[in-house]
Amino acid sequence: MDIFGISLDPSEIVSIIGPIIAKILLLIIAFLIFVPIGRKAIEKTIQRAGKNERISPGRVRTLEKLLVNLFSYVMIFIFIIMLFALLGLDIGPLLAGAGIIGLAVGFGAQGLVSDVVTGFFILLERQIEIDDYVTAGGFDGIVEEVGLRTTKIRGFNGTLNFVPNRHIEGVANHSRGNMRALVDIGISYHDNIDQAITVLEKVCIEFQTDERFKDGPNVLGVQSFGSSDVVLRVVGQTENGEQFGCERDMRKRIKEMFDTENIEIPYPHQVFIQKES
Amino acid sequence: MDIFGISLDPSEIVSIIGPIIAKILLLIIAFLIFVPIGRKAIEKTIQRAGKNERISPGRVRTLEKLLVNLFSYVMIFIFIIMLFALLGLDIGPLLAGAGIIGLAVGFGAQGLVSDVVTGFFILLERQIEIDDYVTAGGFDGIVEEVGLRTTKIRGFNGTLNFVPNRHIEGVANHSRGNMRALVDIGISYHDNIDQAITVLEKVCIEFQTDERFKDGPNVLGVQSFGSSDVVLRVVGQTENGEQFGCERDMRKRIKEMFDTENIEIPYPHQVFIQKES
Amino acid sequence: MDIFGISLDPSEIVSIIGPIIAKILLLIIAFLIFVPIGRKAIEKTIQRAGKNERISPGRVRTLEKLLVNLFSYVMIFIFIIMLFALLGLDIGPLLAGAGIIGLAVGFGAQGLVSDVVTGFFILLERQIEIDDYVTAGGFDGIVEEVGLRTTKIRGFNGTLNFVPNRHIEGVANHSRGNMRALVDIGISYHDNIDQAITVLEKVCIEFQTDERFKDGPNVLGVQSFGSSDVVLRVVGQTENGEQFGCERDMRKRIKEMFDTENIEIPYPHQVFIQKES
Amino acid sequence: MDIFGISLDPSEIVSIIGPIIAKILLLIIAFLIFVPIGRKAIEKTIQRAGKNERISPGRVRTLEKLLVNLFSYVMIFIFIIMLFALLGLDIGPLLAGAGIIGLAVGFGAQGLVSDVVTGFFILLERQIEIDDYVTAGGFDGIVEEVGLRTTKIRGFNGTLNFVPNRHIEGVANHSRGNMRALVDIGISYHDNIDQAITVLEKVCIEFQTDERFKDGPNVLGVQSFGSSDVVLRVVGQTENGEQFGCERDMRKRIKEMFDTENIEIPYPHQVFIQKES
Amino acid sequence: MDIFGISLDPSEIVSIIGPIIAKILLLIIAFLIFVPIGRKAIEKTIQRAGKNERISPGRVRTLEKLLVNLFSYVMIFIFIIMLFALLGLDIGPLLAGAGIIGLAVGFGAQGLVSDVVTGFFILLERQIEIDDYVTAGGFDGIVEEVGLRTTKIRGFNGTLNFVPNRHIEGVANHSRGNMRALVDIGISYHDNIDQAITVLEKVCIEFQTDERFKDGPNVLGVQSFGSSDVVLRVVGQTENGEQFGCERDMRKRIKEMFDTENIEIPYPHQVFIQKES
Amino acid sequence: MDIFGISLDPSEIVSIIGPIIAKILLLIIAFLIFVPIGRKAIEKTIQRAGKNERISPGRVRTLEKLLVNLFSYVMIFIFIIMLFALLGLDIGPLLAGAGIIGLAVGFGAQGLVSDVVTGFFILLERQIEIDDYVTAGGFDGIVEEVGLRTTKIRGFNGTLNFVPNRHIEGVANHSRGNMRALVDIGISYHDNIDQAITVLEKVCIEFQTDERFKDGPNVLGVQSFGSSDVVLRVVGQTENGEQFGCERDMRKRIKEMFDTENIEIPYPHQVFIQKES
Amino acid sequence: MDIFGISLDPSEIVSIIGPIIAKILLLIIAFLIFVPIGRKAIEKTIQRAGKNERISPGRVRTLEKLLVNLFSYVMIFIFIIMLFALLGLDIGPLLAGAGIIGLAVGFGAQGLVSDVVTGFFILLERQIEIDDYVTAGGFDGIVEEVGLRTTKIRGFNGTLNFVPNRHIEGVANHSRGNMRALVDIGISYHDNIDQAITVLEKVCIEFQTDERFKDGPNVLGVQSFGSSDVVLRVVGQTENGEQFGCERDMRKRIKEMFDTENIEIPYPHQVFIQKES
Repeated sequence: MDIFGISLDPSEIVSIIGPIIAKILLLIIAFLIFVPIGRKAIEKTIQRAGKNERISPGRVRTLEKLLVNLFSYVMIFIFIIMLFALLGLDIGPLLAGAGIIGLAVGFGAQGLVSDVVTGFFILLERQIEIDDYVTAGGFDGIVEEVGLRTTKIRGFNGTLNFVPNRHIEGVANHSRGNMRALVDIGISYHDNIDQAITVLEKVCIEFQTDERFKDGPNVLGVQSFGSSDVVLRVVGQTENGEQFGCERDMRKRIKEMFDTENIEIPYPHQVFIQKES
Repeated sequence: MDIFGISLDPSEIVSIIGPIIAKILLLIIAFLIFVPIGRKAIEKTIQRAGKNERISPGRVRTLEKLLVNLFSYVMIFIFIIMLFALLGLDIGPLLAGAGIIGLAVGFGAQGLVSDVVTGFFILLERQIEIDDYVTAGGFDGIVEEVGLRTTKIRGFNGTLNFVPNRHIEGVANHSRGNMRALVDIGISYHDNIDQAITVLEKVCIEFQTDERFKDGPNVLGVQSFGSSDVVLRVVGQTENGEQFGCERDMRKRIKEMFDTENIEIPYPHQVFIQKES
Repeated sequence: MDIFGISLDPSEIVSIIGPIIAKILLLIIAFLIFVPIGRKAIEKTIQRAGKNERISPGRVRTLEKLLVNLFSYVMIFIFIIMLFALLGLDIGPLLAGAGIIGLAVGFGAQGLVSDVVTGFFILLERQIEIDDYVTAGGFDGIVEEVGLRTTKIRGFNGTLNFVPNRHIEGVANHSRGNMRALVDIGISYHDNIDQAITVLEKVCIEFQTDERFKDGPNVLGVQSFGSSDVVLRVVGQTENGEQFGCERDMRKRIKEMFDTENIEIPYPHQVFIQKES
Repeated sequence: MDIFGISLDPSEIVSIIGPIIAKILLLIIAFLIFVPIGRKAIEKTIQRAGKNERISPGRVRTLEKLLVNLFSYVMIFIFIIMLFALLGLDIGPLLAGAGIIGLAVGFGAQGLVSDVVTGFFILLERQIEIDDYVTAGGFDGIVEEVGLRTTKIRGFNGTLNFVPNRHIEGVANHSRGNMRALVDIGISYHDNIDQAITVLEKVCIEFQTDERFKDGPNVLGVQSFGSSDVVLRVVGQTENGEQFGCERDMRKRIKEMFDTENIEIPYPHQVFIQKES
Repeated sequence: MDIFGISLDPSEIVSIIGPIIAKILLLIIAFLIFVPIGRKAIEKTIQRAGKNERISPGRVRTLEKLLVNLFSYVMIFIFIIMLFALLGLDIGPLLAGAGIIGLAVGFGAQGLVSDVVTGFFILLERQIEIDDYVTAGGFDGIVEEVGLRTTKIRGFNGTLNFVPNRHIEGVANHSRGNMRALVDIGISYHDNIDQAITVLEKVCIEFQTDERFKDGPNVLGVQSFGSSDVVLRVVGQTENGEQFGCERDMRKRIKEMFDTENIEIPYPHQVFIQKES
Repeated sequence: MDIFGISLDPSEIVSIIGPIIAKILLLIIAFLIFVPIGRKAIEKTIQRAGKNERISPGRVRTLEKLLVNLFSYVMIFIFIIMLFALLGLDIGPLLAGAGIIGLAVGFGAQGLVSDVVTGFFILLERQIEIDDYVTAGGFDGIVEEVGLRTTKIRGFNGTLNFVPNRHIEGVANHSRGNMRALVDIGISYHDNIDQAITVLEKVCIEFQTDERFKDGPNVLGVQSFGSSDVVLRVVGQTENGEQFGCERDMRKRIKEMFDTENIEIPYPHQVFIQKES
Repeated sequence: MDIFGISLDPSEIVSIIGPIIAKILLLIIAFLIFVPIGRKAIEKTIQRAGKNERISPGRVRTLEKLLVNLFSYVMIFIFIIMLFALLGLDIGPLLAGAGIIGLAVGFGAQGLVSDVVTGFFILLERQIEIDDYVTAGGFDGIVEEVGLRTTKIRGFNGTLNFVPNRHIEGVANHSRGNMRALVDIGISYHDNIDQAITVLEKVCIEFQTDERFKDGPNVLGVQSFGSSDVVLRVVGQTENGEQFGCERDMRKRIKEMFDTENIEIPYPHQVFIQKES
């Protein structure tokens, strides 16, 4: 065989390529055996540690997912390095010498590094843990996994969102401490404000015995003058996650009390002045 | 022949250029034969593997398209390198020495590298598979192909969208797990909230026997006070892909029940106060 | 002549400049002769190849325009290089040594490289062909030419848009496969939903025999509750390019059937409550 | 054992790896003991210093959190350096020689450096202290922690927001000095402006005795002509944090006075001209 | 004279500075004579060439302005280089050695290079010619000059807009080929669609004899269901620049025909439901 | 003591570290004494200079704050350099040799340099002085301090805004020269325009004697046709800071004059056409 | 005195520092004398040149301000260089060797270079002259000064805007040539279009004798069908700066003519269909 001026002896080729292929196969097999074992080991270690030292189950799962994740990336990196070593390629100078391509790769890959740096600090500073309800990178939902590169957020409607960490420019974590329930209610300009506030205070007292409220709802006062109504505001502090339920219950109770007391939640009003054409 | 001071002997030219052209032709023919064979081989291997190891058909096709895709790019790269080698050009120093042009190319090509890096992780982390219903890079639809550089998404209206992977800043995958069906319904301020909730609960019970619902629809309560209606919310968990159908059926059923029970879905209201001009 | 300390002998100048000018003229003439011949040759070759191998005429023209385009840029590049060579300027070190200017040029020219890289992949991946109806880079229309640097899109109103390829961040190609025709139609809250659906289904059956429909139009159901109407949706799959005509015909037919069956497409409604001022 | 051509003697491996592992364990233990002691020491020192030199408790806590924060990052850095030293890796040249990877890391990590530089100046210039009410980086709330890299802001609804400092492009600090309470009130075009201003001035005089007001509320005059009302403006300077309460009280009092004086806060007006169709 | 330790002999200064100043003056005079002559020469050459080879007057003026423009910039560049040479400053190493300043200049000047690169391709690809009506870089109007750095666009209201070429991200040229005239017209829901279409077709037939129409106006059909009207669309192809006049004439004629045939262009409709308060 | 293979003799450690600590303490004490003295000196010098050379008090305070500010940053810089020198660290090569970290720092710190460069020119070109009312970087208010890095703006509602100078992309300074007071007033379509203009001119003549007006208010004419009113415009030039008060007074006076002359400021109008359903 | 191991002899210090301080003082005095003289000289030269060669006063002032501006910056630059030279600091290598800091400065200062490059071309291409009415960088007003770094624009309301030249992405200059006056006027659907056009043409003829109009106003025709009116357009070309006054006068005259001819400018119309609830 003579291709482009280089004569090749088939038997020679086999004697060169054969052992390399054998080694590559060995390498692949080694990884196929080792990687799943390593993952299991990590998971068990974390779970045992979690039980012994009474860490919250959310944090245990966060750590578990993270370490398995990290382990996988490191394995891929080692695999590629070993493969290059097997093939006798010196990867360092190869890359460094690649001038332009290197430049392009360097710029192109900075997104990846940004992801990892941001991900590292999200984990280190415990900004997000699995099962937290967060708003991050324009997505809103329950966190399913926090990785070094990507965070998975399950939206309310069931969608699974994958957010590269560098697009998380600020995390709003809705699962850290008590939340506020807030109800704005408009009354007619012709109703008596004091009477309406008294009714709202009655409702507040009812709810102050509700266990979900940590700091009983209170009437703040006249929040604004609307175009057709005077807006009153009621605010209270509830247990985390209970704020939406509390708001719904308060809205229903306020409507019932207003019906009893003949206080009107007004429709939009308009004054009509008739003119002959 | 004497062009710009360099004298050229035609026969000499032929003797130099001839074998090069011959080699180039050989190279082209070799590629024209080899590339389609390689593609077929990849496709068959993947399909056989898919059957043996019971991988989902979506993932089989994803892998198949990806590998063929990857194979093509590698072949183009090898072809260009071999062509340069044939012509006796040392591409490395050529590029590295090209100073300014190199700089421009390096910057200009970083988009390409970003595409490939992002594409690699989309595939590795299985963010998208063929036939998933996703929102990515501002496009919305069914995935037809996930490549290293470009993802093809077929929109609902039939448009085929090509999205370079670097513009996918976060994937919302609507095909991973159960979805939520959500119906908001407004009732009049004069209707009884309890009665309306009772009717909605009846509808919910009907649908809880529907196989498409995984977690039967429930009435959440008073979601908000609209300017002319009190908004009630019904939510349920359905099988993936069935959420829109379920919402449509629930809307139709709620309307029928409300008609029977004389509960009004109100038009916008306005209070008129007449004045003499 | 003695300018700034350098004495110049006119005859000497002529003897130096003369042959250079002669060579430049020769070079220009050579190019003026060669370039048009080259273009013609490319065009004919492509057209003959297109006929022999039954390639679609759109693709033939795409390739033809592209190759002529590419040929022109390469000729300009060669011309500039030869001109510099004639004048005895070594362009490589000249540029490489130009420090700051080089830096500025490198950065300034990256847009050009981005254009070419993106253009190359648009052509390689066949994202756009001539006569496709596409949305790209904020422009919408029929493609007239796809070049390595610029894509020309003829808008519906007749405007010719020139889009540098780097501003094409994602192509929405409306000429690949069947399209969907979609008609949303609102009926009054007082009309019977079942009756309206029956009428719509009759219209759908009529259109299912229409050759333009590939997957006959069907009634989906209650899409949403509007403020004054219940919105029903009809959807069907049509041949590419026929979707707008089909929608127009369906709209006309639905209106006629609704008139016959006394189903009202309602105007906006409002409830008025009169009060004394 | 013979892996990829390198023969390994198990006992040799143990004799090499053993002491290294021992040292690493020692290092970890040293840090686990030293770090908490260091933190406590910092906290106590700051608290004592705070008492002696009568620094405001907010500033004491800011400094305390900051120094503990800084101490932790320095410890992590030292730990990594020592680990590398233990393993005999010279980190400097390693990084510097890493060409492309270095470039990518350099670019990717610039966000981190930006965070620290910005954070340093936020602290140095005392832009934010713990318990301040601020708007920064698109988030709004009470500051819980100012770190070198991240600032934690507790939103009004209870959400804990983590803002990387580089996204703080300008701080609006609402806790520095007196605030203004501002009430805009619309009167009918048919009411007498002078009378309405007199009433508003009466209300202002009442509130000027209110301790919360630092510069008693005053009537500014006719702020604008609305489409249905003449808008008058009342403005006063209050103690920090009392502005919202003052506005609510003033709104309630003005409404009551207007009711007494028969001044109308008008609904939107419209002139109707009836025509025969 | 002895300034900061350097003793200066006035006569010596004069003997050094004198000839330099003389040379600079000579240089300035040479340029003041040569530049206007060069400009005139260019203009005449282009105009003569334009007449001989029957090039459109727009293109002649484009080329003329461009070449004069280019000539001016080259002259400025040469002048600066010669000035530096006169003063004995070697500009190359000076700039190259200027480290930081060079970096800043390199980055700062990239905008200039971008302008020139973009301008070069706008001219080469004939995207814009003088007197074209274009939309580019956010400005809209008639092109007055296309330069290598800046394009001048005269807006409809008379404003002269200067657009640096790098801000032209895509050119919409409204002067290339026929344009479309499009009239949307709403008819009442109670009118007969077929009758209205017949009337519109009559108008279309009238206009098909109009010379300005290249492809006579046609009725497309029911474009959409508005909230109060059924929208019909008429479209035709006109000569470039005549589209707005054609639309105005068609609108007038359609209104007249509709008046004759008693077809109503409806006002917004609303259904009123009166309720007792 | 033997840590990681390095044996340490405690007494030796003390003899090395002791003098260094002593020197550091000396350095700190020196700075604690020197810095406040320096600040006082600067403040007094500026104030004395201000009195002698009759500089406006705003400019005196600007210069004072700036120099103290600058002095502080220089002191911090000197302190860090001296500290490094004490510890025997050569900071120059240390930084230069730090490869990647240097790159990251260089990029990360460019924001800081941008701040200082912009701040320097804001001060040099006197764009902002203390007590000016400006709009800059999205904030609006009275300037409290202009530093090299940050500008402090006190908003109207009392908020103190810190704006890094690089985010000031253009300063709108409302305290340089006279301002314009502008009142737009709508009259009914049925009123006589000439009569309304006469009334407005009477109001203008009244105000022309007002000292706050530098160029007496004048009636411009019919500014636009509103949907229900004809809009007239009155404009005048006032002393800086008096424009809002003047507008308020003019609005009040115009309303009174219109009431006297029976000119109506119209409510929105609408024509109603009744139809049978 | 012995500070940190360096012994200092006070008299020695004085003998070193003394002459340096003396030289610095000399330098400062030299500049304080020279700079104002230089400025005056420039101003006078320009003014004399302006008179002799009949340049427009706007351009004279532009050149004057620019040259004084440029002169100041060059003086500052020379002063800093001389100061460094006096202190024996070699600024070139100092800066070049400063590695990271240099990088940061280079990037941070690119804004400054961009300003100067853009400013240079704004002046060279005469895009802006003093007293022009322009829109640039988001600001709108009369130009007061065009500098190399900053342009000052006086807004209509009196605000002085400072725009760094790099933020001027395109200049809209409203002071170059005639401007267009444009009046859109709506007539009722029931009015006769021909009659209204005749009236408008009468108004146009009246104004064609007005000296301010360069190309007399003409009626274009039916511009659009509004929801309640048929919109007619009148357009004319006026002298620069007179367009707003012309529009105001035409609006007033058209209103008067329409009143005389009983053509109605219609209010918004709505069709009401009454229904029983």
